[in-house]
Amino acid sequence: MSPRQLHLNVNLLHSGVYPSAWRLPDSDPRAFFDLGHYVRVAQIAERGKFDAIFLADSPAVNDRIDYRSFTSMEPTIVLATVAATTRHIGLIGTVSTTYNEPYNIARRFVTLDHASGGRSGWNAVTTADAASSRNFGLTGALEHKARYERAKEFTEVVHALFDSWEDDAFVGDKASARFVDTSKVHPIAHRGPHYSVAGPLNVPRSPQGRPVTVQAGGSNDGRDFAAAYAEAVFTLAQSIEEGVAYARDLRARAASYRRSGDSIVILPGLATVIGSTEAEAKRRQDELWELVPIEYSLARLAGTLQIDPTLLELDKPLPDPLPLPVNANHTMFQGTVNIARRGNLTVRQLIRALGGGVGHRIIVGTPEQIADDIEAWFKAGAADGFNLMPDVLPSGLETFVDTVVPILQSRGLFRTEYAGSTLRDHFGLQRPVSRYAKRSPEVASA
Amino acid sequence: MSPRQLHLNVNLLHSGVYPSAWRLPDSDPRAFFDLGHYVRVAQIAERGKFDAIFLADSPAVNDRIDYRSFTSMEPTIVLATVAATTRHIGLIGTVSTTYNEPYNIARRFVTLDHASGGRSGWNAVTTADAASSRNFGLTGALEHKARYERAKEFTEVVHALFDSWEDDAFVGDKASARFVDTSKVHPIAHRGPHYSVAGPLNVPRSPQGRPVTVQAGGSNDGRDFAAAYAEAVFTLAQSIEEGVAYARDLRARAASYRRSGDSIVILPGLATVIGSTEAEAKRRQDELWELVPIEYSLARLAGTLQIDPTLLELDKPLPDPLPLPVNANHTMFQGTVNIARRGNLTVRQLIRALGGGVGHRIIVGTPEQIADDIEAWFKAGAADGFNLMPDVLPSGLETFVDTVVPILQSRGLFRTEYAGSTLRDHFGLQRPVSRYAKRSPEVASA
Repeated sequence: MSPRQLHLNVNLLHSGVYPSAWRLPDSDPRAFFDLGHYVRVAQIAERGKFDAIFLADSPAVNDRIDYRSFTSMEPTIVLATVAATTRHIGLIGTVSTTYNEPYNIARRFVTLDHASGGRSGWNAVTTADAASSRNFGLTGALEHKARYERAKEFTEVVHALFDSWEDDAFVGDKASARFVDTSKVHPIAHRGPHYSVAGPLNVPRSPQGRPVTVQAGGSNDGRDFAAAYAEAVFTLAQSIEEGVAYARDLRARAASYRRSGDSIVILPGLATVIGSTEAEAKRRQDELWELVPIEYSLARLAGTLQIDPTLLELDKPLPDPLPLPVNANHTMFQGTVNIARRGNLTVRQLIRALGGGVGHRIIVGTPEQIADDIEAWFKAGAADGFNLMPDVLPSGLETFVDTVVPILQSRGLFRTEYAGSTLRDHFGLQRPVSRYAKRSPEVASA
Repeated sequence: MSPRQLHLNVNLLHSGVYPSAWRLPDSDPRAFFDLGHYVRVAQIAERGKFDAIFLADSPAVNDRIDYRSFTSMEPTIVLATVAATTRHIGLIGTVSTTYNEPYNIARRFVTLDHASGGRSGWNAVTTADAASSRNFGLTGALEHKARYERAKEFTEVVHALFDSWEDDAFVGDKASARFVDTSKVHPIAHRGPHYSVAGPLNVPRSPQGRPVTVQAGGSNDGRDFAAAYAEAVFTLAQSIEEGVAYARDLRARAASYRRSGDSIVILPGLATVIGSTEAEAKRRQDELWELVPIEYSLARLAGTLQIDPTLLELDKPLPDPLPLPVNANHTMFQGTVNIARRGNLTVRQLIRALGGGVGHRIIVGTPEQIADDIEAWFKAGAADGFNLMPDVLPSGLETFVDTVVPILQSRGLFRTEYAGSTLRDHFGLQRPVSRYAKRSPEVASA
């Protein structure tokens, strides 16, 4: 058996993870709504043999767009565009379980899976922010537990719809005029507290059997959801110890759902600032940091903490105690608080440590240093790979692909060619069998 | 001013409008879920300088898929794929107003408009069939009037969201760190009986101002909806007189909404079977007809009429009176009944006249005959162009482009090159101004 391989996913966060990324001289401020930008970044990732690109999402204006670039384009349209202009790379898009119908989402991802030859993945999110809720008839976001209950049922329905066509249901025999063997197309007849869906889907089974299900969310409910349904997770961890503890917890929870721990690929977020020397990398970080207006950083921090910005004083620590927010992104909240408390940081120092609003772990250094860090996490079992967040796109990714990837490859940690053609192949995940498929008598008795 | 020009749209109905299209020797039965097929057909239409391709849709299995090819792929994913592989042709996709959220749909089409450089169109349908309703938590379809009330409010919200960014709201000025001028990004603050949507959209204004709104539906409610909101309509008319009467009625209704009659492009459906001689065309039609299993045709006719198939006797006329169906497609129902009654046809003759389930007007003949027919309808004011439904795809479209289009061009009826770059340009529709845009003092006083 070949040694365990690293997985690399790039978070295609419009202009890059730094709020100031759009202000660098080489950046095109219009990139966030230029489909050509998304295609170019995906092609660079594909050149670097990455597993996948990932598009975060939120169906609302919920950041300070007066200061910064933001998630705007609807992800599945972007992924279809990228599918048509790439050949190998996986395509993961975020879609909310709170503000959609499961039939539509199952269908959209199976269509994307056909469009891409089996490269699609769905990042299921419950969408916590209040701005989104107001675009869908609610005056505030659903309570945390209620969102996850909906999300579980939603995902159950989506997975059942994925399975509603057996692999060989399509016949297409011209001589006998038999188009579909409808005995192999199954109603799902779901009736639950939130959804009633008859099925079947009106799309033949996806090339991957099921598009890959991805999840990001570190709360107790989020971990439980991931343990039950996710095949890859985007996580937030600031240290190897946190990463190892998370992995151990998640694999134990998965076992309680009778799932193998190997069936989930764990990908912590990793923001990168690369220089040919450490000093050069630090200068680049300083430049990015200085281009973030302080008004933006304060507003962003207040948003993550869900408190009034006037409660934040630049040269004092965070208010203590902080009220636990009801509708915040739990993972981002806890990560931010941990950084502040651990270093006993003032608000100004915290903002700097967060990269002006990055939120995930940032590593600033040479290609060699970054490769060392990645290898250490990977070998310690704190990560199966990373959800990479380049400081600036495309330049930060281009540098990673040209300088860090060759080191990882030379160490035997990362592929030099794609071995398979689907996202499941890249992630080393099995192709699921439809729950409705009857085993043939020969197989059953074997 | 240049003479009035014909508009041509192709209904990219998977294998073609004939239920037996997939059984012809040259047809690929897998075409309905092969994105490459959709791309090839769109590229042929673009070679023929067509205005647009159109994708019908239904979020359910609601035809006899044991016998025939069907609408399966989610339309906006297909259109994004086609956008990436074509340069000029318009991209119209069907999305239901009953089973979606307006924020998601506005966002999806504006994203598609950015992805295609201003070529997107949304065909708003209310989705009448019961099979669809069962995939979205209902036990039967909403009543006709209720569907249209929702559709109107849905479309109001979508149009307001289209307008929520003024053209010059995006700034992207690196020096001043000003990314968006948020005074030009407007909440829509919609609160209605069916939807509450705060807005704004999180996507800059579409290249077309608004993606083109399309509608198909000949009922009284459908016509009223079209008069209020549609910029292009797909209609069903069997004679020039019907076409003229429809156009007159629609333009009068539009006037009552203070809209110019010229602001709506009327495109009756036209199924074509082309041969180099009339006899050859008739032989092709016979072949297509003989390949439709009679069991399918009976099931399909019973479905259109919403009656029990056992009430249909092959060698007798339709039952008289027929119960008026509550949840059928009104246009298809009335069109079918009209053909039967006008010709005093038996069920077998009716099925043949319907082409085994085509439903729209079928013309069978030489390129010259088809061009003559199109010219006569166009000059009589019965059509601004046609929603073309080739018998078989891609072959029926290829023949049309190679033989009928040159005749229409030589008569000065149809473009020989694209004059503009957007779907609005092709259709001759104005680019709307955002309802939220303040006229500058200079302009206001001019």
